Amino acid sequence: MTTIADGRTDLLSSLAEPTEAEVAGLDAWWRANNYLTIGQIYLQGNPLLREPLTAAHIKPRLLGHWGTSPGLSLVYAHVSRLIRLTGQQAIYLAGPGHGGPALVAAGYLEGTYTDVYPAVTQDEAGMLRLFRQFSSPGGIPSHVSVTTPGSIHEGGELGYVLVHAFGAVMDNPDLLAIAVVGDGEAETGPLEGSWKGISFINPAHDGAVLPILHLNGAKISGPAVLARKDPAEVRDLMRGHGYEVIEVEGEDLPGMHLRFAAALAQAWGRIRDIQTAAREGSDAGPRPTWPMIILRSPKGWTGPAEVDGVTVTGTWRSHQVPLSGVRDNAEHLAILESWLRSYRPEELFDAAGAPTALVRDEAPEGDLRMSASPHANGGLLTRDLDLPDFRDYEIKVDSPGTSRAESTRKLGELMRDIYTRNPDRFRLFCPDETNSNRLGAVFEVSDRAFMEHVTPDDVAISRDGRVMEVLSEHSCHGWLEGYNLTGRHGMFATYEAFAMVSASQTVQHGKWLQEAKHLPWRAKVPSLNVLLTSTAWRNDHNGFSHQGPGLIQVVLTQRGDVARVYLPPDANTLLSVADHCFRSRSYINLIVIDKQPQLQWLTMDEAVEHCTRGAGVWEWAGTDDGTRDPDIVLACAGDVVTMETVAAAQILRERLPDMRVRVVNVVNLMTLSRPKDHPHGMSEIQFTELFTDTVDVVFAFHGYPGAIHQLVHGRPDADRFRVRGFIEQGTTTTPFDMTVRNRTSRYHLVMDAINNAKRLPRGAADLKAWCEAQLARHEAYVVEHLEDMPEVRDWAVGSPS
Amino acid sequence: MTTIADGRTDLLSSLAEPTEAEVAGLDAWWRANNYLTIGQIYLQGNPLLREPLTAAHIKPRLLGHWGTSPGLSLVYAHVSRLIRLTGQQAIYLAGPGHGGPALVAAGYLEGTYTDVYPAVTQDEAGMLRLFRQFSSPGGIPSHVSVTTPGSIHEGGELGYVLVHAFGAVMDNPDLLAIAVVGDGEAETGPLEGSWKGISFINPAHDGAVLPILHLNGAKISGPAVLARKDPAEVRDLMRGHGYEVIEVEGEDLPGMHLRFAAALAQAWGRIRDIQTAAREGSDAGPRPTWPMIILRSPKGWTGPAEVDGVTVTGTWRSHQVPLSGVRDNAEHLAILESWLRSYRPEELFDAAGAPTALVRDEAPEGDLRMSASPHANGGLLTRDLDLPDFRDYEIKVDSPGTSRAESTRKLGELMRDIYTRNPDRFRLFCPDETNSNRLGAVFEVSDRAFMEHVTPDDVAISRDGRVMEVLSEHSCHGWLEGYNLTGRHGMFATYEAFAMVSASQTVQHGKWLQEAKHLPWRAKVPSLNVLLTSTAWRNDHNGFSHQGPGLIQVVLTQRGDVARVYLPPDANTLLSVADHCFRSRSYINLIVIDKQPQLQWLTMDEAVEHCTRGAGVWEWAGTDDGTRDPDIVLACAGDVVTMETVAAAQILRERLPDMRVRVVNVVNLMTLSRPKDHPHGMSEIQFTELFTDTVDVVFAFHGYPGAIHQLVHGRPDADRFRVRGFIEQGTTTTPFDMTVRNRTSRYHLVMDAINNAKRLPRGAADLKAWCEAQLARHEAYVVEHLEDMPEVRDWAVGSPS
Repeated sequence: MTTIADGRTDLLSSLAEPTEAEVAGLDAWWRANNYLTIGQIYLQGNPLLREPLTAAHIKPRLLGHWGTSPGLSLVYAHVSRLIRLTGQQAIYLAGPGHGGPALVAAGYLEGTYTDVYPAVTQDEAGMLRLFRQFSSPGGIPSHVSVTTPGSIHEGGELGYVLVHAFGAVMDNPDLLAIAVVGDGEAETGPLEGSWKGISFINPAHDGAVLPILHLNGAKISGPAVLARKDPAEVRDLMRGHGYEVIEVEGEDLPGMHLRFAAALAQAWGRIRDIQTAAREGSDAGPRPTWPMIILRSPKGWTGPAEVDGVTVTGTWRSHQVPLSGVRDNAEHLAILESWLRSYRPEELFDAAGAPTALVRDEAPEGDLRMSASPHANGGLLTRDLDLPDFRDYEIKVDSPGTSRAESTRKLGELMRDIYTRNPDRFRLFCPDETNSNRLGAVFEVSDRAFMEHVTPDDVAISRDGRVMEVLSEHSCHGWLEGYNLTGRHGMFATYEAFAMVSASQTVQHGKWLQEAKHLPWRAKVPSLNVLLTSTAWRNDHNGFSHQGPGLIQVVLTQRGDVARVYLPPDANTLLSVADHCFRSRSYINLIVIDKQPQLQWLTMDEAVEHCTRGAGVWEWAGTDDGTRDPDIVLACAGDVVTMETVAAAQILRERLPDMRVRVVNVVNLMTLSRPKDHPHGMSEIQFTELFTDTVDVVFAFHGYPGAIHQLVHGRPDADRFRVRGFIEQGTTTTPFDMTVRNRTSRYHLVMDAINNAKRLPRGAADLKAWCEAQLARHEAYVVEHLEDMPEVRDWAVGSPS
Repeated sequence: MTTIADGRTDLLSSLAEPTEAEVAGLDAWWRANNYLTIGQIYLQGNPLLREPLTAAHIKPRLLGHWGTSPGLSLVYAHVSRLIRLTGQQAIYLAGPGHGGPALVAAGYLEGTYTDVYPAVTQDEAGMLRLFRQFSSPGGIPSHVSVTTPGSIHEGGELGYVLVHAFGAVMDNPDLLAIAVVGDGEAETGPLEGSWKGISFINPAHDGAVLPILHLNGAKISGPAVLARKDPAEVRDLMRGHGYEVIEVEGEDLPGMHLRFAAALAQAWGRIRDIQTAAREGSDAGPRPTWPMIILRSPKGWTGPAEVDGVTVTGTWRSHQVPLSGVRDNAEHLAILESWLRSYRPEELFDAAGAPTALVRDEAPEGDLRMSASPHANGGLLTRDLDLPDFRDYEIKVDSPGTSRAESTRKLGELMRDIYTRNPDRFRLFCPDETNSNRLGAVFEVSDRAFMEHVTPDDVAISRDGRVMEVLSEHSCHGWLEGYNLTGRHGMFATYEAFAMVSASQTVQHGKWLQEAKHLPWRAKVPSLNVLLTSTAWRNDHNGFSHQGPGLIQVVLTQRGDVARVYLPPDANTLLSVADHCFRSRSYINLIVIDKQPQLQWLTMDEAVEHCTRGAGVWEWAGTDDGTRDPDIVLACAGDVVTMETVAAAQILRERLPDMRVRVVNVVNLMTLSRPKDHPHGMSEIQFTELFTDTVDVVFAFHGYPGAIHQLVHGRPDADRFRVRGFIEQGTTTTPFDMTVRNRTSRYHLVMDAINNAKRLPRGAADLKAWCEAQLARHEAYVVEHLEDMPEVRDWAVGSPS
């Protein structure tokens, strides 16, 4: 027995050794939850078994996942008791996401489900509705989802339960996140990589995660690696990840209740010890060894042991629906009925169908119920950031394009002061690149978080740090999601090329936000802000593998009510965009800007006005006087291509002064959409004001050209948009050569303008020839530089075909 | 000392205890490689230090990564010695990819670099070229890349070195893959998840991976978790992953040579023991404990210990360029010169600049040189698959749309027979879903591979199995990449929604293939075949989180010379497409088709003809007699939307018989591109023959509509394409309701056809009203079904706004 600092040994003893009555209560709640789980999978009538079960009571299509559910429910019951006895605030993250019916049942037993879905009443009719909606058209999915009260973790794509849990407890000192890791999920890369979260959790100012590795032996149709390894290896693995291993194994009752209660008490006592020591300042040693529990229980535990002479419980056969063909197979129907009756529903639900006191009393009170925790509906706890005035970070711009600056440095300064003003609710997440991304100003006020050994040569690293650097995009992204969904604010900054590593997380989080918007009881949460730097166009020495602007394309697939993409061309527009993003709620804000010194275009006042509109004419760059349609529109979105566009306009201005050229810059990519496709979409009138409705548009885009084609589809004569952008012509080369290879250089844009202009002034042919000569000169330079290295040259100069 | 079965104790002793002369040779090679590494980072002249170093010899921009390189080179030297003494075939995978200059230098010292790039001669001029091309425009990147001979692993995105290594050794019994894991890479999720590869490697028929965890303490600007954890924890972690841990630590010389030689001998002896036991059949016990090495050496080892009074070697400061400002700082220039001279280049390179015998003699002969291994240029070893005639798996189709089948079952049967005919060069990789994806026929001839404990309840699982199931898309994808790049064939089958998990791997592998095409010495390898099932449209009970056809969009961003996307609408077209993909080389073939029973359309002969064209008119479905332009074109790509399109055409045929409707089905999505954008792009004439050049096209697409808009951009009057597709309106609902929510149902298509037809026959208005009534009836059904569950109903029926 652990003795904790504040003399709660008696409490721990009580926790660890439940009385017979307590065990009976735990078991009753567990039986009730199992009963409701099976009901959801099988029943469309006779929910309380008031009459003998018949085929008509069985759903026509049997869907759902029984296998993991009894284990999830057992843990839920015991954590609820812990909460009741200690007042601990806790949330429950179900990694085995297909245990949806178990978590839905728990919310129902706790009354929360009825609170948020009043039609799902705590009576026979409501129970029937609960059963029928499950995995049914118009109902709820078979996994834990946004619709499940108490959840911040969708059980779809596997691998993120620990990162979500760790994100949830950062700066949340009173919160305990129970994170159940399924043995299928435990095989994924992102999950294995996320045990190391404890290397970044400071018990003084963060809460705690209690991982429960639930090994029930199998996945959908085969065994799982961890379940079948030598158990000594699994213990070594968890110790190696830095945990104190507590094991519970078996299926005997009440033995499992007694052993799990003891294990949970031990884990909680250890967590409180760690926290107390850290908070009283008595622990400045190395990273604490946090507890975790390995729970080995049979898959489909308490289900039918054998069906048709084949073992089911404890095998992969109980993963989904252990008894099939129940409507047509009298024997299976009988097994189902006796299985359901084995939980003694008459003890668990009263005459009306409501949970009896035996069951009800197991739930904690009010917000302490895990299904009702405001931490799992983080919008309820969200407080606005205390933001400094972003205008104070202005870069002075005397005239456009005359000075250079690393734009992201200003964002670093802004975030530095956000850190200072919001010590409890803002964090930056970045895989090892905060300095590289020029955001290092944050280190003036906060170190990197790190609980492992530090040395005198380390800089800006300490256990008190709150800048999150780990070389895992999955962890960074997932931590921020957990932080956001519990109501706090942040930014994920990463290299553009490697943003695709966590693209699926962006998609899944976008889906979460999209669904949450349809649930009135889910309060809006801070937006997920993603900053991409080190872009495709400026990856001089890294080359092709580091050149990929693909995440824009991914975000564009999300619905307009969550997806936003910003391409600020300079520092002042970046500051304005960032301020907007930090104030927004329940969006995915993707901001793309390079970190290298770049030309600055707009004063702060101009930037604010430009960002407010999202897109606008840069009159100073063109020769269009606004009185009639120009001959050509040069449009751009993205920093490097904006520079090329302005340069192209300058060439045209100087060499073809009679040509009317309009320059349009787009900061908010979504303004290009039609209003029916995106709320930021500009009206047809605004669109025509910028782009006319007949003049050709040469559009230089940061990303893949297809993105613009799909955005302007449906706009007047969309065919007139000629888009230049990244066309996968990358290599180790100069920034300018990158624009040449991708046919987006100033010379290409000038030639495009000439080829497509409404009206061609004298001199156009000469200018085209001049552009071609410039490009030939460039090509000659490249070739000459490598003249006697033909193999490398072929590769460098481009496709031989 | 391990004693191995075939009496090679003496060999192992020799390996473990190098003579003084051998150590001198190892050290000379190592010094030479370090010298060449530094030369690449710093020098643009005076490569052999024949004169005092001056600022003019220093590159204007210093780029590259020194930190990891000396460790990588040390390992390379010792493995080369192992190869020389044992004849072991080995390849080298450098996880710390930014150690590019070290691996390039190794290829140069071995002569391979000159073999493939003849201008980079083994003399002073060639050495200078080697130095100048590094991280220079038109040259090579600073990481290990496609251009590096001997590599199958690009050092860009981190996390895949072990999966690539494991894939390389599957069915490659004589190959040893040396996989160096950097401490940065070790932090990523995919890497942590990939240690478990040994649970799937059978020493009887697979080769071996020797992981070397190279902990040098730091990443780009801070420490790494594994480097700073208690070393006992790291040992536990590796033991927990199932390895025998061999540790080497230090920086003393020749001590490190002696200790590393002993460690490598121990590891190799252990590997040979395991393999011999397995191959002689004397080992049928549990998974062997494979060896791995933890190598702790200082970051930037042998570099300048201190610069400007600050410690550099052993810290993050040596990650990239440890000495900056060398051109302008005489002191730094002097440090660089003495640093370079500390390797005694005069011993290592002769008067002409070629490696001296002392260095040369360290390299193995011919193909045994790791930089020259044909395993790392797998196209050289690729043998065509022995494919059965796919026509033999035909589903009989008497008339279109009259029978249903699970199309992927036929593909399973085809792959079953491919397994039988190609026991040494074909594998299926799938996260736990082979049966679920209806591909289970393969289990008739091969089990799942699994080296952990199996039980009597397990089905089709054994150590002899060669079907690869692990619940990690990262592992499946990466294994297949390693298998492909070493010249073998396979398929990665996964759920469509979770294909995004490994999207970045698809992108990076695509980039590899794109670059390889420009290198004449790289032989073409089998294509990476990806099959997506469980599609967005048929995820009835799983709901929104399982509905995302995003990978198509990702593959479309790749260049036309590698990217292919196929949407076969039925079994016979799937068989034809699959046969084509299995025969192809160096592509990414994405095949999307659902696994549920679906209508069958084409006979095998029709399917072959249809797939050969890639897209064609389905005359039987429309009313277009081909003699003149139709009134509307109904086009489709994807199984569910094809069914809706044919149904829409049928409604029009029956109810508006005078309307001329043409139905076009697209199997090969890339045919829509212009020939200049993709080699499969159909000519303008063919395009016009199918789609006319003025008639409106209602296009029902499996994926996001934007994909079609970008593909048809530039085609005649592309604005006339009205695309319906997945617009993120997913939920738990029926397949038909999915098409309604996404406005892609037969009724929507009919209304689109009427709204956009060139010529409207009498009755069109009535038909439109009828369609609206059908949709209203559907909506009423949905609403009624859930009439008194308003909250859930709101969520189910769609956006309230």
